[in-house]
Amino acid sequence: MKHFTTVHDVKNVDDLIHEALLLKQDPQAFRHMGRGRTLGLIFMNPSLRTRLSTQKAAMNLGMNVMVMNVDKEGWALEFNEGAVMNGTKVEHIKDAAAVMGTYCDIIGIRCFPGLLDKKEDYSEKVLLSFMKHCRVPVVSLESATLHPLQSFADLVTIKEHWHKKGAPKVVLTWAPHIKALPQAVANSFSEWVLKTNANLVIAQPEGYELCEDYTRGAKIMYDQKKALEGADFVYVKNWSGYKEYGKIHTVKENWLLDNKRMAITNNAKVMHCLPVRRNVELSDELLDGKNSLVIKQAENRLYAAQAVLKQILGGHYKIQSRKLEHEATAYN
Amino acid sequence: MKHFTTVHDVKNVDDLIHEALLLKQDPQAFRHMGRGRTLGLIFMNPSLRTRLSTQKAAMNLGMNVMVMNVDKEGWALEFNEGAVMNGTKVEHIKDAAAVMGTYCDIIGIRCFPGLLDKKEDYSEKVLLSFMKHCRVPVVSLESATLHPLQSFADLVTIKEHWHKKGAPKVVLTWAPHIKALPQAVANSFSEWVLKTNANLVIAQPEGYELCEDYTRGAKIMYDQKKALEGADFVYVKNWSGYKEYGKIHTVKENWLLDNKRMAITNNAKVMHCLPVRRNVELSDELLDGKNSLVIKQAENRLYAAQAVLKQILGGHYKIQSRKLEHEATAYN
Amino acid sequence: MKHFTTVHDVKNVDDLIHEALLLKQDPQAFRHMGRGRTLGLIFMNPSLRTRLSTQKAAMNLGMNVMVMNVDKEGWALEFNEGAVMNGTKVEHIKDAAAVMGTYCDIIGIRCFPGLLDKKEDYSEKVLLSFMKHCRVPVVSLESATLHPLQSFADLVTIKEHWHKKGAPKVVLTWAPHIKALPQAVANSFSEWVLKTNANLVIAQPEGYELCEDYTRGAKIMYDQKKALEGADFVYVKNWSGYKEYGKIHTVKENWLLDNKRMAITNNAKVMHCLPVRRNVELSDELLDGKNSLVIKQAENRLYAAQAVLKQILGGHYKIQSRKLEHEATAYN
Repeated sequence: MKHFTTVHDVKNVDDLIHEALLLKQDPQAFRHMGRGRTLGLIFMNPSLRTRLSTQKAAMNLGMNVMVMNVDKEGWALEFNEGAVMNGTKVEHIKDAAAVMGTYCDIIGIRCFPGLLDKKEDYSEKVLLSFMKHCRVPVVSLESATLHPLQSFADLVTIKEHWHKKGAPKVVLTWAPHIKALPQAVANSFSEWVLKTNANLVIAQPEGYELCEDYTRGAKIMYDQKKALEGADFVYVKNWSGYKEYGKIHTVKENWLLDNKRMAITNNAKVMHCLPVRRNVELSDELLDGKNSLVIKQAENRLYAAQAVLKQILGGHYKIQSRKLEHEATAYN
Repeated sequence: MKHFTTVHDVKNVDDLIHEALLLKQDPQAFRHMGRGRTLGLIFMNPSLRTRLSTQKAAMNLGMNVMVMNVDKEGWALEFNEGAVMNGTKVEHIKDAAAVMGTYCDIIGIRCFPGLLDKKEDYSEKVLLSFMKHCRVPVVSLESATLHPLQSFADLVTIKEHWHKKGAPKVVLTWAPHIKALPQAVANSFSEWVLKTNANLVIAQPEGYELCEDYTRGAKIMYDQKKALEGADFVYVKNWSGYKEYGKIHTVKENWLLDNKRMAITNNAKVMHCLPVRRNVELSDELLDGKNSLVIKQAENRLYAAQAVLKQILGGHYKIQSRKLEHEATAYN
Repeated sequence: MKHFTTVHDVKNVDDLIHEALLLKQDPQAFRHMGRGRTLGLIFMNPSLRTRLSTQKAAMNLGMNVMVMNVDKEGWALEFNEGAVMNGTKVEHIKDAAAVMGTYCDIIGIRCFPGLLDKKEDYSEKVLLSFMKHCRVPVVSLESATLHPLQSFADLVTIKEHWHKKGAPKVVLTWAPHIKALPQAVANSFSEWVLKTNANLVIAQPEGYELCEDYTRGAKIMYDQKKALEGADFVYVKNWSGYKEYGKIHTVKENWLLDNKRMAITNNAKVMHCLPVRRNVELSDELLDGKNSLVIKQAENRLYAAQAVLKQILGGHYKIQSRKLEHEATAYN
């Protein structure tokens, strides 16, 4: 694996899940693997779970970590090729990315969508520009359209909690929110689950249909109640409109899940990527109930990130080891 | 010791001071003790001394450190149980704390009071919510009502500079300031000194009496001059009103200390927790004079923090060591 | 070397360049040298290259690194001696610096000029106050008038790309910009190049002459075209007026370099310290062309910083080693 920006970067999803679960048993088993290697984390947007879990994952592998909050500690970046930079942007992505690539062995980057221009967001302009110019492996810490570290951790969590034969029924259900959120978590969860043997149902109100590129193969429903019937896992998430991009549509029915509504499921586990707007997206009784997996999902972010970094480091590891054996030769 | 949020968490204050002084002689003697362990530092308010000294203390013990500036790098937090989160708060403390607890072995948190609602501040709502939900040892980096790392470092400093027989006379004196400050440093200094054999006098103008829960056993005086008579250590600090909470009362007399006024003391050492408003709280001549301990207090913050982290790590250390011996077994 | 704030702190520039080039061959050869030593990085202004390269340089030497963004994570500082601090400044530089000095073995500091008061800026008030009070070695991360880590990396880059006999012709040319920038990079580049055998020409429009203290020995020209004749290296940089301090003068001629104008040079390499305003300071065709050294300059920032830190550590290294050998004695 060179980059990690979508499920399509992963050769074998089951193997990667297995790797994460092994690392969870013994997080420091490979604590020398990243010795002398540096992970740079670029945040163009706020982050708590991703920031801490990825940082810790790298440290568990013995890597050094450097964190940059762009726009705050650094510079506002220009993304347009050929721009005459006489405005507020002080550095072009092609220069900033190339420079960061010289200081880091792997770079993680978070770049949310603007939610104003669908074509620009779905072209992943920022992520792809960065990858093109930095020339080192890139890990998405959530891009405009996908959040693969989250989805991978979600699958690890489902794997840990599914002990029956056959395939689980997984329902991804839209939930209310007070503002327009990206589709990234939902797109990503869908494309990852569709790589497993699980049966995926996606339920949302009219107008909130996701982009088909990510959901092809899932059953799309508009009736939350029917969708929940017999569900083993219910993943709750808000997103804004895709067709009418970034739009918040009026929804008459109540999409806020509670215990009563969950009775129709197969005693389903409840999932959410956090942060969650309690009693807006999801009720306290479900979040704090015995079937809630939300904290376990967050915890698995650590092992998911660690498995990804380990796989990327793997390809370079031999070269690096050889170099350390002969260290100081320039001085002897 | 599990948590460190008040002097009452400490079994034996003298032993802890002794530990800090030993660590000062050889700060890296235990540099493998925290190997593979992570300290998370959560700052809800600015910090210089606390940030740097605690970070370095952890690194001296071989720990990894992750720093989060909440509100800036992260999210605005909701603290009310059962809240319908349709406002500006994007995550509930119970979720944020639980998640951070899964990534960190010890968490340090700074959460200043609002100084508007005495009951809320003195209930230590933020600190206690965090401790309840994160499930790992918590170190206060200054809470609404106490600043135990500062007070502990202050006692270490007094110990270093008291070479006579008997108990020193320690005077905590209120000082002027241009804005309303918390009572945390004063409360905390008082409760720590009262655990030693020192004679504590607290001097303040009318209206600035501290909460008796922290000062019971100290002599309370309103005349700074009389209070200073024969003092061995004078601790200077501003705080706002406790009774009329957060209030700044008009003070007619001059409470700004200078050399002339200090003549009445027993050649007392001058202490302040910093940052200090020079020539408002304390005069240049005292701060820069030979009796000033202020930089030594700041330096001792490092060894105080290190002693605290070492004691907390101590309880977990054997388990961790055993794990490292058998490392990589999951892969063999 | 104790401090590193100007070329005058360096005993032998050629030796230091040689050291950087050796470290580039094997960056981790001395990865135990800084064990248990701490570098503090104080940023009073934004930073990308300097932040990341200096941090990584320290980690390559095994040092711990603590980063402080002053004004954001910390406090607004007072610099005036004897000030009555009843305004917005919450801590005096003399206290802040003294405290940081107790936590760090080496401190790097970035403090840009205000560009309003020439005398204040050129007295390096902030840098010198900090150095005076912190009592540990200080590395400039760009001060009001100089940027020595940049200039040193620039010379390393020139050394790597000059394979002919004799001395290269190096042209430092002013370039347009949309706002007033410091003279630090230009001053510094000039004083460093003048320590080598290179022939330095500085070209700028009327009004943009640099302070002679830094340029004495260089050929000063007002005609960019003539200056470029036969140049081997062209260093492009904007700066604001020195005589009329901080001023932006109207410039009628076009000073923006492109391929056509570069034809008159000796196939010169193009240099810039970054960040660069593309197509304002320097054209895309030159920045992205085969003669551009800009990314290599940025990469060499790492090895320049590492050579500087290694030299500073060198003087203390034996003491530190001895201490580590006897570690834990206080406890035996």
